[in-house]
Amino acid sequence: MTLRRRLRVGLVQLSVATNRRTDNLRRAEALVHEAVDDGCELVVLPEAFATALNLPKSHEVAEPVPGPVTEWLAERASRYGVWIAAGLLERNGEHVHSSAVLIADDGSLVDVYRRTVVYDLEAHFLTGEVGTRVVDTPLGRIGLVVGYDIQFPEVLRGLFADGVEIVVCPSILLRPFAEPVRQMLLARAAENCAYVLFAGATGENTLAGLTYMGRTAVIRSPMAIGAYSRDFRRQEPVLAEADREECVVSADLDLHELRRMQAAAPFPADFRRSPLGQALIAASARPGALPLGDPR
Amino acid sequence: MTLRRRLRVGLVQLSVATNRRTDNLRRAEALVHEAVDDGCELVVLPEAFATALNLPKSHEVAEPVPGPVTEWLAERASRYGVWIAAGLLERNGEHVHSSAVLIADDGSLVDVYRRTVVYDLEAHFLTGEVGTRVVDTPLGRIGLVVGYDIQFPEVLRGLFADGVEIVVCPSILLRPFAEPVRQMLLARAAENCAYVLFAGATGENTLAGLTYMGRTAVIRSPMAIGAYSRDFRRQEPVLAEADREECVVSADLDLHELRRMQAAAPFPADFRRSPLGQALIAASARPGALPLGDPR
Repeated sequence: MTLRRRLRVGLVQLSVATNRRTDNLRRAEALVHEAVDDGCELVVLPEAFATALNLPKSHEVAEPVPGPVTEWLAERASRYGVWIAAGLLERNGEHVHSSAVLIADDGSLVDVYRRTVVYDLEAHFLTGEVGTRVVDTPLGRIGLVVGYDIQFPEVLRGLFADGVEIVVCPSILLRPFAEPVRQMLLARAAENCAYVLFAGATGENTLAGLTYMGRTAVIRSPMAIGAYSRDFRRQEPVLAEADREECVVSADLDLHELRRMQAAAPFPADFRRSPLGQALIAASARPGALPLGDPR
Repeated sequence: MTLRRRLRVGLVQLSVATNRRTDNLRRAEALVHEAVDDGCELVVLPEAFATALNLPKSHEVAEPVPGPVTEWLAERASRYGVWIAAGLLERNGEHVHSSAVLIADDGSLVDVYRRTVVYDLEAHFLTGEVGTRVVDTPLGRIGLVVGYDIQFPEVLRGLFADGVEIVVCPSILLRPFAEPVRQMLLARAAENCAYVLFAGATGENTLAGLTYMGRTAVIRSPMAIGAYSRDFRRQEPVLAEADREECVVSADLDLHELRRMQAAAPFPADFRRSPLGQALIAASARPGALPLGDPR
Protein backbone atom coordinates (compact mmCIF):
# COMPACT_ATOMS: atom_id res chain seq x y z
CA MET A 1 0.00 0.00 0.00
CA THR A 2 1.05 3.62 -0.53
CA LEU A 3 2.63 5.26 2.47
CA ARG A 4 0.63 8.18 3.78
CA ARG A 5 2.58 11.40 4.25
CA ARG A 6 0.06 13.27 6.39
CA LEU A 7 -2.76 12.23 8.63
CA ARG A 8 -5.32 14.26 10.54
CA VAL A 9 -6.30 12.74 13.86
CA GLY A 10 -9.09 13.66 16.27
CA LEU A 11 -9.01 12.63 19.91
CA VAL A 12 -12.32 12.72 21.73
CA GLN A 13 -12.01 13.90 25.33
CA LEU A 14 -15.23 12.49 26.72
CA SER A 15 -16.84 12.95 30.11
CA VAL A 16 -17.37 9.29 30.98
CA ALA A 17 -20.18 8.76 33.49
CA THR A 18 -20.57 5.50 35.39
CA ASN A 19 -23.92 3.72 34.89
CA ARG A 20 -24.88 6.07 32.04
CA ARG A 21 -23.96 4.06 28.95
CA THR A 22 -26.68 5.53 26.70
CA ASP A 23 -25.76 9.09 27.61
CA ASN A 24 -22.03 8.40 27.12
CA LEU A 25 -22.69 6.98 23.66
CA ARG A 26 -24.89 9.93 22.73
CA ARG A 27 -22.20 12.47 23.60
CA ALA A 28 -19.49 10.30 22.00
CA GLU A 29 -21.56 10.23 18.79
CA ALA A 30 -21.72 14.04 18.68
CA LEU A 31 -17.97 14.38 19.24
CA VAL A 32 -17.08 11.72 16.67
CA HIS A 33 -19.25 13.65 14.24
CA GLU A 34 -17.42 16.87 15.13
CA ALA A 35 -14.05 15.18 14.48
CA VAL A 36 -15.27 13.88 11.12
CA ASP A 37 -16.51 17.37 10.16
CA ASP A 38 -13.05 18.64 11.04
CA GLY A 39 -11.51 16.26 8.49
CA CYS A 40 -10.06 13.70 10.93
CA GLU A 41 -9.31 10.31 9.41
CA LEU A 42 -8.47 8.55 12.67
CA VAL A 43 -10.72 9.19 15.68
CA VAL A 44 -9.75 8.00 19.17
CA LEU A 45 -12.09 7.59 22.16
CA PRO A 46 -11.02 7.09 25.80
CA GLU A 47 -10.56 3.88 27.78
CA ALA A 48 -13.86 2.22 28.76
CA PHE A 49 -15.61 5.18 27.12
CA ALA A 50 -19.09 3.65 27.23
CA THR A 51 -19.13 2.40 30.82
CA ALA A 52 -16.16 3.78 32.79
CA LEU A 53 -14.15 1.10 34.60
CA ASN A 54 -16.93 0.63 37.16
CA LEU A 55 -14.83 -1.92 39.00
CA PRO A 56 -17.41 -3.48 41.34
CA LYS A 57 -19.68 -4.10 38.34
CA SER A 58 -16.97 -4.59 35.71
CA HIS A 59 -18.04 -8.16 34.90
CA GLU A 60 -21.64 -7.07 34.52
CA VAL A 61 -21.01 -4.13 32.18
CA ALA A 62 -18.19 -5.72 30.16
CA GLU A 63 -19.00 -7.00 26.67
CA PRO A 64 -17.43 -9.54 24.35
CA VAL A 65 -15.37 -8.39 21.37
CA PRO A 66 -16.92 -8.28 18.84
CA GLY A 67 -20.05 -7.18 20.67
CA PRO A 68 -22.43 -4.26 21.06
CA VAL A 69 -19.79 -1.55 21.62
CA THR A 70 -17.56 -2.66 18.74
CA GLU A 71 -20.66 -2.85 16.54
CA TRP A 72 -21.59 0.68 17.56
CA LEU A 73 -18.06 1.80 16.66
CA ALA A 74 -18.00 -0.15 13.38
CA GLU A 75 -21.28 1.42 12.34
CA ARG A 76 -19.81 4.94 12.81
CA ALA A 77 -16.50 4.01 11.17
CA SER A 78 -18.15 2.71 8.00
CA ARG A 79 -20.80 5.45 7.90
CA TYR A 80 -18.21 8.23 8.12
CA GLY A 81 -15.39 6.42 6.36
CA VAL A 82 -12.94 6.94 9.23
CA TRP A 83 -10.77 4.69 11.37
CA ILE A 84 -11.70 4.54 15.06
CA ALA A 85 -9.73 3.42 18.10
CA ALA A 86 -11.48 3.18 21.44
CA GLY A 87 -11.30 1.56 24.85
CA LEU A 88 -13.89 -0.79 26.29
CA LEU A 89 -14.32 -3.30 29.09
CA GLU A 90 -13.98 -6.67 27.38
CA ARG A 91 -15.52 -9.81 28.82
CA ASN A 92 -13.45 -12.87 27.98
CA GLY A 93 -14.88 -15.93 29.73
CA GLU A 94 -14.03 -15.53 33.43
CA HIS A 95 -11.85 -12.51 32.79
CA VAL A 96 -12.50 -8.84 32.21
CA HIS A 97 -9.87 -6.78 30.39
CA SER A 98 -9.55 -3.08 29.83
CA SER A 99 -9.07 -3.37 26.09
CA ALA A 100 -8.60 -1.11 23.11
CA VAL A 101 -9.87 -1.89 19.63
CA LEU A 102 -8.91 -0.54 16.23
CA ILE A 103 -11.63 -0.46 13.61
CA ALA A 104 -11.05 0.27 9.91
CA ASP A 105 -13.03 2.70 7.77
CA ASP A 106 -15.05 -0.21 6.37
CA GLY A 107 -16.12 -1.22 9.88
CA SER A 108 -13.83 -4.24 10.18
CA LEU A 109 -12.20 -5.01 13.52
CA VAL A 110 -8.48 -4.80 12.85
CA ASP A 111 -6.92 -5.16 16.29
CA VAL A 112 -7.75 -5.82 19.92
CA TYR A 113 -5.26 -5.08 22.70
CA ARG A 114 -5.73 -5.85 26.41
CA ARG A 115 -4.12 -3.52 28.95
CA THR A 116 -0.89 -5.06 30.23
CA VAL A 117 -0.59 -3.51 33.68
CA VAL A 118 -3.38 -3.67 36.21
CA TYR A 119 -3.34 -1.37 39.25
CA ASP A 120 -3.24 -3.28 42.55
CA LEU A 121 -6.82 -2.42 43.55
CA GLU A 122 -8.05 -3.21 40.05
CA ALA A 123 -6.58 -6.69 40.17
CA HIS A 124 -9.69 -8.07 41.89
CA PHE A 125 -11.78 -7.01 38.90
CA LEU A 126 -9.53 -6.81 35.83
CA THR A 127 -6.97 -9.11 34.27
CA GLY A 128 -3.80 -7.87 32.61
CA GLU A 129 -2.31 -9.56 29.57
CA VAL A 130 1.17 -9.17 28.13
CA GLY A 131 1.63 -8.57 24.42
CA THR A 132 1.69 -5.66 22.01
CA ARG A 133 2.00 -5.56 18.25
CA VAL A 134 2.07 -3.04 15.45
CA VAL A 135 -0.56 -3.09 12.73
CA ASP A 136 0.26 -1.75 9.28
CA THR A 137 -2.68 0.27 8.06
CA PRO A 138 -3.16 2.69 5.16
CA LEU A 139 -2.89 5.45 7.79
CA GLY A 140 0.50 4.32 9.12
CA ARG A 141 1.96 1.75 11.51
CA ILE A 142 -0.26 1.79 14.59
CA GLY A 143 0.24 0.24 18.04
CA LEU A 144 -2.36 0.17 20.82
CA VAL A 145 -1.73 0.52 24.56
CA VAL A 146 -4.19 1.54 27.28
CA GLY A 147 -4.20 4.07 30.13
CA TYR A 148 -2.08 2.93 33.08
CA ASP A 149 0.36 1.20 30.67
CA ILE A 150 1.79 4.62 29.87
CA GLN A 151 3.48 4.75 33.30
CA PHE A 152 5.43 1.58 32.41
CA PRO A 153 7.89 2.35 29.62
CA GLU A 154 8.67 -1.33 29.02
CA VAL A 155 5.13 -1.91 27.72
CA LEU A 156 5.80 0.21 24.60
CA ARG A 157 9.22 -1.19 23.71
CA GLY A 158 7.97 -4.10 21.63
CA LEU A 159 6.13 -1.53 19.49
CA PHE A 160 9.31 0.57 19.28
CA ALA A 161 11.32 -2.44 18.12
CA ASP A 162 8.78 -2.94 15.33
CA GLY A 163 8.98 0.68 14.17
CA VAL A 164 5.64 1.90 15.46
CA GLU A 165 4.67 5.29 14.01
CA ILE A 166 1.51 6.07 15.98
CA VAL A 167 1.03 4.86 19.55
CA VAL A 168 -2.67 5.12 20.43
CA CYS A 169 -3.50 5.25 24.13
CA PRO A 170 -7.14 5.51 25.23
CA SER A 171 -7.16 6.26 28.96
CA ILE A 172 -9.28 6.91 32.01
CA LEU A 173 -6.79 8.12 34.61
CA LEU A 174 -7.28 10.17 37.74
CA ARG A 175 -6.56 13.84 38.16
CA PRO A 176 -3.70 13.70 40.69
CA PHE A 177 -1.65 11.85 38.07
CA ALA A 178 -2.09 14.49 35.35
CA GLU A 179 1.36 16.05 35.62
CA PRO A 180 3.50 12.89 35.84
CA VAL A 181 1.44 11.29 33.07
CA ARG A 182 2.04 14.29 30.82
CA GLN A 183 5.79 14.10 31.49
CA MET A 184 5.77 10.40 30.70
CA LEU A 185 3.81 10.97 27.47
CA LEU A 186 6.49 13.39 26.29
CA ALA A 187 9.19 10.86 27.09
CA ARG A 188 7.32 8.00 25.40
CA ALA A 189 7.22 9.98 22.14
CA ALA A 190 10.91 10.86 22.44
CA GLU A 191 12.29 7.47 23.45
CA ASN A 192 10.13 5.53 21.00
CA CYS A 193 10.52 7.98 18.14
CA ALA A 194 6.77 8.00 17.47
CA TYR A 195 3.57 10.00 17.73
CA VAL A 196 1.57 9.38 20.89
CA LEU A 197 -2.21 9.91 20.79
CA PHE A 198 -3.48 10.12 24.35
CA ALA A 199 -7.30 10.28 24.48
CA GLY A 200 -8.36 10.81 28.06
CA ALA A 201 -11.64 10.59 29.91
CA THR A 202 -12.70 13.69 31.77
CA GLY A 203 -15.47 14.52 34.23
CA GLU A 204 -16.37 13.28 37.69
CA ASN A 205 -17.08 9.83 38.98
CA THR A 206 -19.58 11.02 41.57
CA LEU A 207 -20.20 7.50 42.90
CA ALA A 208 -16.54 7.05 43.80
CA GLY A 209 -15.69 10.71 44.47
CA LEU A 210 -13.04 10.70 41.72
CA THR A 211 -12.12 13.21 39.04
CA TYR A 212 -10.60 12.14 35.73
CA MET A 213 -7.56 13.96 34.44
CA GLY A 214 -8.56 14.84 30.87
CA ARG A 215 -5.37 16.37 29.34
CA THR A 216 -5.95 14.66 26.02
CA ALA A 217 -2.91 15.35 23.85
CA VAL A 218 -1.23 14.69 20.52
CA ILE A 219 2.51 14.38 21.15
CA ARG A 220 5.37 14.00 18.72
CA SER A 221 9.03 13.34 19.24
CA PRO A 222 10.92 16.52 20.18
CA MET A 223 13.52 15.68 17.54
CA ALA A 224 13.39 16.52 13.85
CA ILE A 225 15.85 16.17 11.00
CA GLY A 226 17.16 19.16 9.11
CA ALA A 227 15.61 19.29 5.64
CA TYR A 228 18.86 18.82 3.71
CA SER A 229 20.95 17.08 6.31
CA ARG A 230 20.91 14.38 8.90
CA ASP A 231 21.33 16.89 11.69
CA PHE A 232 18.89 16.67 14.54
CA ARG A 233 17.10 19.81 15.61
CA ARG A 234 14.46 20.56 18.17
CA GLN A 235 10.73 20.74 17.52
CA GLU A 236 7.81 21.51 19.82
CA PRO A 237 6.54 18.16 21.09
CA VAL A 238 2.92 19.02 22.00
CA LEU A 239 0.89 19.40 18.81
CA ALA A 240 -2.48 19.85 20.50
CA GLU A 241 -3.74 19.49 24.04
CA ALA A 242 -6.90 19.97 26.11
CA ASP A 243 -7.42 20.73 29.76
CA ARG A 244 -10.56 19.16 31.29
CA GLU A 245 -13.37 20.24 28.97
CA GLU A 246 -15.32 17.77 26.85
CA CYS A 247 -13.97 18.36 23.34
CA VAL A 248 -12.16 17.05 20.25
CA VAL A 249 -8.37 17.57 20.13
CA SER A 250 -7.19 17.40 16.54
CA ALA A 251 -3.84 17.69 14.81
CA ASP A 252 -2.02 16.86 11.59
CA LEU A 253 0.70 14.21 11.79
CA ASP A 254 3.65 14.47 9.41
CA LEU A 255 4.48 10.82 8.85
CA HIS A 256 7.01 11.60 6.15
CA GLU A 257 9.06 13.66 8.61
CA LEU A 258 8.70 10.93 11.24
CA ARG A 259 10.01 8.25 8.89
CA ARG A 260 13.01 10.40 7.94
CA MET A 261 13.78 10.78 11.61
CA GLN A 262 13.35 7.09 12.39
CA ALA A 263 15.72 6.26 9.53
CA ALA A 264 18.35 8.78 10.70
CA ALA A 265 18.19 8.19 14.46
CA PRO A 266 20.59 5.61 15.84
CA PHE A 267 18.62 4.67 18.93
CA PRO A 268 16.09 2.24 17.37
CA ALA A 269 18.95 0.03 16.16
CA ASP A 270 20.87 0.56 19.42
CA PHE A 271 17.79 -0.68 21.27
CA ARG A 272 17.19 -3.72 19.08
CA ARG A 273 20.72 -5.03 19.46
CA SER A 274 21.00 -4.38 23.21
CA PRO A 275 20.48 -7.41 25.48
CA LEU A 276 17.80 -5.58 27.48
CA GLY A 277 16.03 -4.68 24.25
CA GLN A 278 16.12 -8.30 23.16
CA ALA A 279 14.78 -9.47 26.51
CA LEU A 280 11.88 -7.05 26.22
CA ILE A 281 11.15 -7.91 22.61
CA ALA A 282 10.95 -11.58 23.51
CA ALA A 283 8.74 -10.91 26.53
CA SER A 284 6.40 -8.50 24.68
CA ALA A 285 5.51 -10.67 21.71
CA ARG A 286 1.78 -11.31 21.61
CA PRO A 287 0.92 -14.99 21.72
CA GLY A 288 -1.49 -16.02 19.00
CA ALA A 289 -2.22 -13.69 16.13
CA LEU A 290 -5.64 -12.08 15.98
CA PRO A 291 -7.46 -12.22 12.65
CA LEU A 292 -6.42 -9.04 10.86
CA GLY A 293 -9.09 -7.38 8.82
CA ASP A 294 -11.72 -9.80 10.09
CA PRO A 295 -15.22 -8.60 9.17
CA ARG A 296 -17.11 -7.37 12.22
CA MET B 1 22.61 2.39 59.60
CA THR B 2 20.38 5.38 60.33
CA LEU B 3 18.30 6.52 57.40
CA ARG B 4 19.14 10.01 56.28
CA ARG B 5 16.18 12.37 55.97
CA ARG B 6 17.87 15.12 53.97
CA LEU B 7 20.87 15.25 51.69
CA ARG B 8 22.53 18.14 49.93
CA VAL B 9 23.95 17.25 46.53
CA GLY B 10 26.23 19.23 44.21
CA LEU B 11 26.47 18.42 40.50
CA VAL B 12 29.53 19.77 38.73
CA GLN B 13 28.78 20.95 35.20
CA LEU B 14 32.28 20.84 33.77
CA SER B 15 33.59 22.02 30.43
CA VAL B 16 35.36 18.83 29.36
CA ALA B 17 38.16 19.44 26.85
CA THR B 18 39.63 16.64 24.77
CA ASN B 19 43.40 16.09 25.23
CA ARG B 20 43.49 18.47 28.21
CA ARG B 21 43.37 16.10 31.17
CA THR B 22 45.42 18.30 33.52
CA ASP B 23 43.33 21.36 32.81
CA ASN B 24 40.08 19.39 33.21
CA LEU B 25 41.22 18.08 36.60
CA ARG B 26 42.27 21.57 37.72
CA ARG B 27 38.85 23.06 36.95
CA ALA B 28 37.09 20.00 38.40
CA GLU B 29 39.08 20.47 41.61
CA ALA B 30 37.92 24.09 41.94
CA LEU B 31 34.27 23.15 41.36
CA VAL B 32 34.39 20.20 43.77
CA HIS B 33 35.78 22.63 46.34
CA GLU B 34 32.93 25.04 45.60
CA ALA B 35 30.36 22.25 46.11
CA VAL B 36 31.99 21.28 49.42
CA ASP B 37 31.95 24.92 50.57
CA ASP B 38 28.25 24.96 49.73
CA GLY B 39 27.67 22.06 52.14
CA CYS B 40 27.18 19.31 49.56
CA GLU B 41 27.66 15.77 50.88
CA LEU B 42 27.46 14.02 47.51
CA VAL B 43 29.30 15.57 44.56
CA VAL B 44 28.79 14.32 41.00
CA LEU B 45 31.10 14.91 38.03
CA PRO B 46 30.23 14.27 34.34
CA GLU B 47 30.89 11.21 32.18
CA ALA B 48 34.55 10.87 31.14
CA PHE B 49 35.17 14.15 32.98
CA ALA B 50 38.97 13.93 32.80
CA THR B 51 39.41 12.98 29.15
CA ALA B 52 36.12 13.35 27.23
CA LEU B 53 35.15 10.23 25.26
CA ASN B 54 37.90 10.90 22.69
CA LEU B 55 36.80 7.89 20.70
CA PRO B 56 39.74 7.43 18.32
CA LYS B 57 42.11 7.49 21.31
CA SER B 58 39.78 5.96 23.86
CA HIS B 59 42.00 2.94 24.49
CA GLU B 60 45.01 5.19 24.98
CA VAL B 61 43.42 7.60 27.46
CA ALA B 62 41.37 5.01 29.36
CA GLU B 63 42.59 3.91 32.79
CA PRO B 64 42.04 0.85 34.93
CA VAL B 65 39.74 1.04 37.96
CA PRO B 66 41.16 1.54 40.50
CA GLY B 67 43.70 3.78 38.76
CA PRO B 68 44.90 7.36 38.58
CA VAL B 69 41.48 9.00 38.14
CA THR B 70 39.81 7.03 40.92
CA GLU B 71 42.81 7.81 43.14
CA TRP B 72 42.43 11.50 42.32
CA LEU B 73 38.73 11.26 43.25
CA ALA B 74 39.42 9.24 46.41
CA GLU B 75 41.94 11.78 47.57
CA ARG B 76 39.33 14.60 47.27
CA ALA B 77 36.57 12.47 48.83
CA SER B 78 38.60 11.66 51.94
CA ARG B 79 40.15 15.13 52.22
CA TYR B 80 36.75 16.87 52.14
CA GLY B 81 34.74 14.07 53.76
CA VAL B 82 32.24 13.87 50.90
CA TRP B 83 30.96 11.13 48.62
CA ILE B 84 31.86 11.52 44.94
CA ALA B 85 30.36 9.96 41.81
CA ALA B 86 32.06 10.53 38.48
CA GLY B 87 32.42 9.15 34.99
CA LEU B 88 35.67 7.92 33.44
CA LEU B 89 36.91 5.87 30.52
CA GLU B 90 37.77 2.50 32.04
CA ARG B 91 40.30 0.17 30.45
CA ASN B 92 39.42 -3.46 31.10
CA GLY B 93 41.80 -5.73 29.20
CA GLU B 94 40.84 -5.45 25.52
CA HIS B 95 37.76 -3.39 26.29
CA VAL B 96 37.09 0.23 27.08
CA HIS B 97 33.92 1.14 28.98
CA SER B 98 32.34 4.47 29.74
CA SER B 99 32.03 3.83 33.46
CA ALA B 100 30.83 5.61 36.55
CA VAL B 101 32.33 5.12 40.00
CA LEU B 102 30.99 5.87 43.45
CA ILE B 103 33.53 6.75 46.11
CA ALA B 104 32.78 7.01 49.82
CA ASP B 105 33.81 9.85 52.12
CA ASP B 106 36.73 7.74 53.38
CA GLY B 107 38.04 7.38 49.82
CA SER B 108 36.96 3.78 49.36
CA LEU B 109 35.67 2.67 45.97
CA VAL B 110 32.09 1.55 46.59
CA ASP B 111 30.73 0.86 43.12
CA VAL B 112 31.72 0.73 39.46
CA TYR B 113 29.10 0.71 36.70
CA ARG B 114 29.75 0.35 32.96
CA ARG B 115 27.41 2.12 30.53
CA THR B 116 24.91 -0.39 29.13
CA VAL B 117 24.05 1.15 25.78
CA VAL B 118 26.70 2.12 23.26
CA TYR B 119 25.83 4.41 20.36
CA ASP B 120 26.36 2.78 16.96
CA LEU B 121 29.42 4.88 16.05
CA GLU B 122 30.88 4.37 19.51
CA ALA B 123 30.71 0.61 19.19
CA HIS B 124 34.10 0.49 17.44
CA PHE B 125 35.71 2.04 20.50
CA LEU B 126 33.56 1.30 23.54
CA THR B 127 31.98 -1.84 24.95
CA GLY B 128 28.58 -1.86 26.65
CA GLU B 129 27.81 -4.12 29.57
CA VAL B 130 24.42 -5.05 30.99
CA GLY B 131 23.82 -4.86 34.71
CA THR B 132 22.78 -2.29 37.28
CA ARG B 133 22.50 -2.52 41.04
CA VAL B 134 21.58 -0.34 43.97
CA VAL B 135 24.09 0.37 46.71
CA ASP B 136 22.90 1.15 50.22
CA THR B 137 24.96 4.00 51.58
CA PRO B 138 24.59 6.27 54.62
CA LEU B 139 23.34 8.89 52.14
CA GLY B 140 20.56 6.74 50.72
CA ARG B 141 20.05 3.96 48.18
CA ILE B 142 22.09 4.94 45.13
CA GLY B 143 22.13 3.51 41.59
CA LEU B 144 24.57 4.51 38.83
CA VAL B 145 23.82 4.83 35.12
CA VAL B 146 25.75 6.78 32.48
CA GLY B 147 24.85 9.31 29.76
CA TYR B 148 23.22 7.66 26.75
CA ASP B 149 21.57 5.07 29.04
CA ILE B 150 19.02 7.73 30.01
CA GLN B 151 17.38 7.44 26.57
CA PHE B 152 16.66 3.75 27.26
CA PRO B 153 14.09 3.46 30.06
CA GLU B 154 14.67 -0.28 30.46
CA VAL B 155 18.21 0.33 31.75
CA LEU B 156 16.86 1.92 34.97
CA ARG B 157 14.16 -0.63 35.76
CA GLY B 158 16.35 -3.04 37.69
CA LEU B 159 17.21 -0.11 39.97
CA PHE B 160 13.50 0.73 40.27
CA ALA B 161 12.68 -2.86 41.24
CA ASP B 162 15.26 -2.60 44.02
CA GLY B 163 13.82 0.65 45.38
CA VAL B 164 16.51 3.05 44.21
CA GLU B 165 16.26 6.47 45.86
CA ILE B 166 18.93 8.41 43.96
CA VAL B 167 19.78 7.64 40.33
CA VAL B 168 23.15 9.22 39.52
CA CYS B 169 23.84 9.84 35.82
CA PRO B 170 27.15 11.41 34.78
CA SER B 171 26.86 12.31 31.11
CA ILE B 172 28.60 13.85 28.10
CA LEU B 173 25.82 14.25 25.55
CA LEU B 174 25.54 16.52 22.54
CA ARG B 175 23.58 19.73 22.32
CA PRO B 176 20.91 18.74 19.76
CA PHE B 177 19.66 16.16 22.25
CA ALA B 178 19.17 18.61 25.12
CA GLU B 179 15.39 18.89 24.90
CA PRO B 180 14.49 15.20 24.47
CA VAL B 181 17.01 14.27 27.17
CA ARG B 182 15.42 16.73 29.59
CA GLN B 183 11.98 15.28 28.85
CA MET B 184 13.29 11.79 29.45
CA LEU B 185 14.96 12.83 32.73
CA LEU B 186 11.61 14.09 34.01
CA ALA B 187 9.95 10.83 33.05
CA ARG B 188 12.72 8.71 34.60
CA ALA B 189 12.17 10.42 37.96
CA ALA B 190 8.39 9.97 37.68
CA GLU B 191 8.26 6.39 36.47
CA ASN B 192 11.00 5.18 38.84
CA CYS B 193 9.81 7.18 41.83
CA ALA B 194 13.33 8.47 42.52
CA TYR B 195 15.62 11.46 42.42
CA VAL B 196 17.68 11.76 39.24
CA LEU B 197 21.03 13.56 39.41
CA PHE B 198 22.13 14.41 35.89
CA ALA B 199 25.64 15.89 35.80
CA GLY B 200 26.42 16.95 32.26
CA ALA B 201 29.55 17.99 30.44
CA THR B 202 29.45 21.37 28.76
CA GLY B 203 31.73 23.24 26.37
CA GLU B 204 32.97 22.57 22.87
CA ASN B 205 34.83 19.66 21.40
CA THR B 206 36.76 21.78 18.91
CA LEU B 207 38.53 18.75 17.40
CA ALA B 208 35.24 17.14 16.42
CA GLY B 209 33.16 20.28 15.94
CA LEU B 210 30.72 19.23 18.65
CA THR B 211 29.01 21.12 21.46
CA TYR B 212 27.98 19.40 24.69
CA MET B 213 24.51 19.98 26.06
CA GLY B 214 25.16 20.95 29.67
CA ARG B 215 21.67 21.19 31.25
CA THR B 216 22.83 19.60 34.48
CA ALA B 217 19.77 19.07 36.66
CA VAL B 218 18.46 17.68 39.92
CA ILE B 219 15.04 16.13 39.25
CA ARG B 220 12.52 14.63 41.62
CA SER B 221 9.32 12.76 41.03
CA PRO B 222 6.43 15.14 40.26
CA MET B 223 4.33 13.27 42.82
CA ALA B 224 4.18 13.92 46.56
CA ILE B 225 2.04 12.58 49.34
CA GLY B 226 -0.22 14.85 51.38
CA ALA B 227 1.19 15.34 54.87
CA TYR B 228 -1.69 13.67 56.73
CA SER B 229 -3.05 11.42 54.03
CA ARG B 230 -2.08 9.04 51.29
CA ASP B 231 -3.36 11.40 48.63
CA PHE B 232 -1.02 12.19 45.79
CA ARG B 233 -0.45 15.80 44.92
CA ARG B 234 1.73 17.58 42.43
CA GLN B 235 5.17 19.02 43.14
CA GLU B 236 7.62 20.89 40.92
CA PRO B 237 9.96 18.25 39.47
CA VAL B 238 13.05 20.36 38.65
CA LEU B 239 14.84 21.25 41.89
CA ALA B 240 17.82 22.93 40.25
CA GLU B 241 19.11 23.24 36.71
CA ALA B 242 21.88 24.91 34.70
CA ASP B 243 22.06 26.00 31.10
CA ARG B 244 25.53 25.70 29.54
CA GLU B 245 27.82 27.58 31.92
CA GLU B 246 30.52 25.82 33.94
CA CYS B 247 29.10 25.70 37.47
CA VAL B 248 27.88 23.69 40.45
CA VAL B 249 24.15 22.84 40.55
CA SER B 250 23.14 22.07 44.13
CA ALA B 251 19.90 21.07 45.82
CA ASP B 252 18.52 19.49 48.97
CA LEU B 253 16.91 16.08 48.60
CA ASP B 254 14.06 15.17 50.96
CA LEU B 255 14.57 11.43 51.32
CA HIS B 256 11.94 11.13 54.03
CA GLU B 257 9.28 12.48 51.66
CA LEU B 258 10.54 10.21 48.88
CA ARG B 259 10.27 7.11 51.09
CA ARG B 260 6.73 8.02 52.11
CA MET B 261 5.84 8.30 48.46
CA GLN B 262 7.52 5.04 47.49
CA ALA B 263 5.62 3.29 50.27
CA ALA B 264 2.26 4.78 49.22
CA ALA B 265 2.58 4.50 45.43
CA PRO B 266 1.20 1.33 43.88
CA PHE B 267 3.37 1.30 40.76
CA PRO B 268 6.59 -0.18 42.22
CA ALA B 269 4.68 -3.31 43.28
CA ASP B 270 2.67 -3.30 40.04
CA PHE B 271 5.97 -3.30 38.15
CA ARG B 272 7.61 -6.04 40.17
CA ARG B 273 4.76 -8.49 39.68
CA SER B 274 4.22 -7.77 35.97
CA PRO B 275 5.74 -10.30 33.53
CA LEU B 276 7.60 -7.54 31.66
CA GLY B 277 8.97 -6.25 34.96
CA GLN B 278 10.15 -9.72 35.85
CA ALA B 279 11.79 -10.17 32.45
CA LEU B 280 13.67 -6.89 32.91
CA ILE B 281 14.68 -7.65 36.48
CA ALA B 282 16.15 -10.98 35.38
CA ALA B 283 17.96 -9.41 32.41
CA SER B 284 19.32 -6.44 34.42
CA ALA B 285 20.95 -8.33 37.26
CA ARG B 286 24.65 -7.64 37.37
CA PRO B 287 26.75 -10.78 37.05
CA GLY B 288 29.39 -11.07 39.75
CA ALA B 289 29.29 -8.77 42.75
CA LEU B 290 31.94 -6.11 43.00
CA PRO B 291 33.74 -5.80 46.33
CA LEU B 292 31.72 -3.25 48.27
CA GLY B 293 33.71 -0.93 50.44
CA ASP B 294 36.98 -2.20 49.03
CA PRO B 295 39.88 0.03 50.08
CA ARG B 296 41.19 2.07 47.16
